[in-house]
Amino acid sequence: MKKKLSEIADFLGARLVGDGNTLIEGLGNIDGAGEHDLIFAVEPHIEAAKESKAAAVMLPEGIGDFPKPALYVEDPRASFAKLLALFTPKLSIPEGVSDRAYIGRDVKLGKNVRILPLAVVDDHAVIGDNVTLYPHTYIGQFAEVGDDTTIYSGATVREYCKVGRRCTIHSSAVIGSDGFGFTTKDGIHTKVPQVGNVVIEDDVEIGAVDGIDRAAMGSTVIGHGTKMDNQVHIGHNCKIGPNCLVVAQVGISGSTTVGHNVTFGGQSGTVGHITIGANSVYGGRSGIIGDMPEGFFGAGFPAQSHASWLRMQAAMKHLPDLLKKVKRLEKQLAKYEAGEKG
Amino acid sequence: MKKKLSEIADFLGARLVGDGNTLIEGLGNIDGAGEHDLIFAVEPHIEAAKESKAAAVMLPEGIGDFPKPALYVEDPRASFAKLLALFTPKLSIPEGVSDRAYIGRDVKLGKNVRILPLAVVDDHAVIGDNVTLYPHTYIGQFAEVGDDTTIYSGATVREYCKVGRRCTIHSSAVIGSDGFGFTTKDGIHTKVPQVGNVVIEDDVEIGAVDGIDRAAMGSTVIGHGTKMDNQVHIGHNCKIGPNCLVVAQVGISGSTTVGHNVTFGGQSGTVGHITIGANSVYGGRSGIIGDMPEGFFGAGFPAQSHASWLRMQAAMKHLPDLLKKVKRLEKQLAKYEAGEKG
Amino acid sequence: MKKKLSEIADFLGARLVGDGNTLIEGLGNIDGAGEHDLIFAVEPHIEAAKESKAAAVMLPEGIGDFPKPALYVEDPRASFAKLLALFTPKLSIPEGVSDRAYIGRDVKLGKNVRILPLAVVDDHAVIGDNVTLYPHTYIGQFAEVGDDTTIYSGATVREYCKVGRRCTIHSSAVIGSDGFGFTTKDGIHTKVPQVGNVVIEDDVEIGAVDGIDRAAMGSTVIGHGTKMDNQVHIGHNCKIGPNCLVVAQVGISGSTTVGHNVTFGGQSGTVGHITIGANSVYGGRSGIIGDMPEGFFGAGFPAQSHASWLRMQAAMKHLPDLLKKVKRLEKQLAKYEAGEKG
Repeated sequence: MKKKLSEIADFLGARLVGDGNTLIEGLGNIDGAGEHDLIFAVEPHIEAAKESKAAAVMLPEGIGDFPKPALYVEDPRASFAKLLALFTPKLSIPEGVSDRAYIGRDVKLGKNVRILPLAVVDDHAVIGDNVTLYPHTYIGQFAEVGDDTTIYSGATVREYCKVGRRCTIHSSAVIGSDGFGFTTKDGIHTKVPQVGNVVIEDDVEIGAVDGIDRAAMGSTVIGHGTKMDNQVHIGHNCKIGPNCLVVAQVGISGSTTVGHNVTFGGQSGTVGHITIGANSVYGGRSGIIGDMPEGFFGAGFPAQSHASWLRMQAAMKHLPDLLKKVKRLEKQLAKYEAGEKG
Repeated sequence: MKKKLSEIADFLGARLVGDGNTLIEGLGNIDGAGEHDLIFAVEPHIEAAKESKAAAVMLPEGIGDFPKPALYVEDPRASFAKLLALFTPKLSIPEGVSDRAYIGRDVKLGKNVRILPLAVVDDHAVIGDNVTLYPHTYIGQFAEVGDDTTIYSGATVREYCKVGRRCTIHSSAVIGSDGFGFTTKDGIHTKVPQVGNVVIEDDVEIGAVDGIDRAAMGSTVIGHGTKMDNQVHIGHNCKIGPNCLVVAQVGISGSTTVGHNVTFGGQSGTVGHITIGANSVYGGRSGIIGDMPEGFFGAGFPAQSHASWLRMQAAMKHLPDLLKKVKRLEKQLAKYEAGEKG
Repeated sequence: MKKKLSEIADFLGARLVGDGNTLIEGLGNIDGAGEHDLIFAVEPHIEAAKESKAAAVMLPEGIGDFPKPALYVEDPRASFAKLLALFTPKLSIPEGVSDRAYIGRDVKLGKNVRILPLAVVDDHAVIGDNVTLYPHTYIGQFAEVGDDTTIYSGATVREYCKVGRRCTIHSSAVIGSDGFGFTTKDGIHTKVPQVGNVVIEDDVEIGAVDGIDRAAMGSTVIGHGTKMDNQVHIGHNCKIGPNCLVVAQVGISGSTTVGHNVTFGGQSGTVGHITIGANSVYGGRSGIIGDMPEGFFGAGFPAQSHASWLRMQAAMKHLPDLLKKVKRLEKQLAKYEAGEKG
């Protein structure tokens, strides 16, 4: 993939200064650029870009006297992102249903679907328009996948579950595994049938190897516009509100209700059967053990206000010293006591 | 799926009061019911049920004067659960081996197996009676799966591993990945071959995207009746006792032995090479760093008795205040010291 | 699989004392051995081995007067490991490309590959020599897998990602899922395209159900010789140095740079956009929230020196007592104050 610098200038509408015949073979960054690479630079990295091995540099207007061929643009970062598309070979994902995919009985397929080799769509499932199913995806019986949704390799959507429109489900994620529900008698755990489903609303992203459990009865719900990172666990019957951000390795226990626009930092967790108010942010590794109000900025385990957590963390650093101080105070006072009695 | 209320009454043996021709199209709950839904209600929700949009309500005997058609039963919740089966379209999982599955050489298949499209059973594996293997399951060479076990899509049982009878293994779970064993010399890590296996006893449930590592030598064992939630990690050579409950995102490090009937709360963890006594409960996010006795109720990191953890948590809230108090005490005493000397 | 003890002695070059015709049907350990098993024993377990049911025992030279047939070797543990191979049925993984695998257009396949049934290699991918792809692996478009690498069932390597030589990728692991990048305006999260890739260098091990996100731009890099346990999350644009050990359930947030030979204990985590110095060890569940120096031994959340964490943990145990002591001191002093004024 070789391009002349002048071609790139034309593509971007950039102002070219220097030799337009310079041949560009790839994109790089200041530190690692090879001698046929194009890089970009903004302050305070302009000087470093001069010293780099790059063949040419993309710069913001206003930088003069540059010792290499240069492309001047308004926003070098944004223009560079456009170039990435130019230098990356295009994916070609064929329309239609691969004859190596498996489609069950009584399946409804929308228009312009892309169902790739070894994907499985089980009986009575409904697949919307423009849906892409990568190899080794499994769509269970009576499950539904909305228009314009992409499901990556190895992901599962189990029976009766519903995935909305414009969703992305990453590889090895599991939608609709059984909720963790057992009754215990004499030390023996007996499964409570998990006969509900999962409903994922529109514009949701589910991360790689996430596990979203189906409801015991009714639905586990992921609200529209909510985005989940990798390895997130959502217990049965949870209702996660719209437009939440759930960072990697968070675990939300069963029957917890979360309002809209809540951010859970990485490795956070909650107990079950609580309500977490909307418009809140919980720092990484928060452990939420009770109902929480709206508009809260929380942290720590048990979760408390972020300010209170910071105070406690600061105080804890003084704890070993504090122990010594109190011992000294006790001694001093004992001396007085002795003096008084003496 | 439409049913007359009188048909439902007959199905349940319920006492019908009101119009038996009322047409029921679905099941709902008090808040979200549509006008053709049947709901159930018990105290203190009877009044709310009157206000709902539902077409009819299932009630416990003893509630009078209800303004909607009603079905009276002994236990509305239990009867409602029975109805769910009636209103949910039945899954039909065909008996036999799909011609789109892949069965290796010298495989032993039991009676009435259901091996679905694109499942793989590798050479010399043994599959018991009534086993269901969903699409994209992989059963490795010489592995064994016991009678009446179900393995969901995308799960792996690697070579030599044994899964007992009446087990459930959820999607994307991995049984028998290599243990994490390396010897390090001059900063280079060299793999210790992991030539053991995993033995999962009868009546075990393994959660979605769990990872259970094979033993370096011998077996990693999951005791009968133990139930694991999603995203659990079990290190190599662990022996997990019977009838344990392992909640989501728990990590048990290698060579740890756990007695029977131990519950690990979500996101708990242990170091390796320890023994954890039977009949114990560890709260969410416990961090166990040494041998633990039987009959223990633990919490915190490092794990301690739950009572002691509660005391410590309560005390920590006072810590910022405590710092101030001690500073004040020091000042006061300094004043006395000065006075004494003065 | 039956062997005479004399055959085993020949195989190992062991010194046989006792009946060489003793028939050995399996390998066991001291506690659980059956009467046709061979076991090994070293001090302090020699006496227990005498009492075991085993047919024969492997011993170190220097142990005399043993009441069972014995094989004397220099290192019983090492010799026993060799025997495991003898008593374990051999895996046979056929060379070549299964006609049940799916190979896309313009794929380059190396020599002696083993591509098993239902593996998928998508268009333009490059597979090196001696690569083994288990069933249900997915290698995306333009992805590359280096020589002598093994990828287990259900693992994904998405488009453009590169896996080095002699790597092992365990089941259900995901290489190249989208990074978690969104811009938020008026509470709506809009995806930032993740157009980079993942580069896994040589001799890396990726654990079961790990998730390694592709870079927003450029590459997420896992350095050569680094070994990862199960359920690890690596955020987009991270650079993990060579020869690190990343224990189970660790989460490294995006754009974090880690030096060489760093060990992260289980369930550790980091914030994003930090630099963690080389040659360091972080204890289990460390929470790293800022840049860290080289050669550090850290623990706790927020991560601090291990020594400081130990002191703090020790001090915390005294905290409930400390509260009482300070209350007592306050009373005593109040008495003095009263006395002084009185």
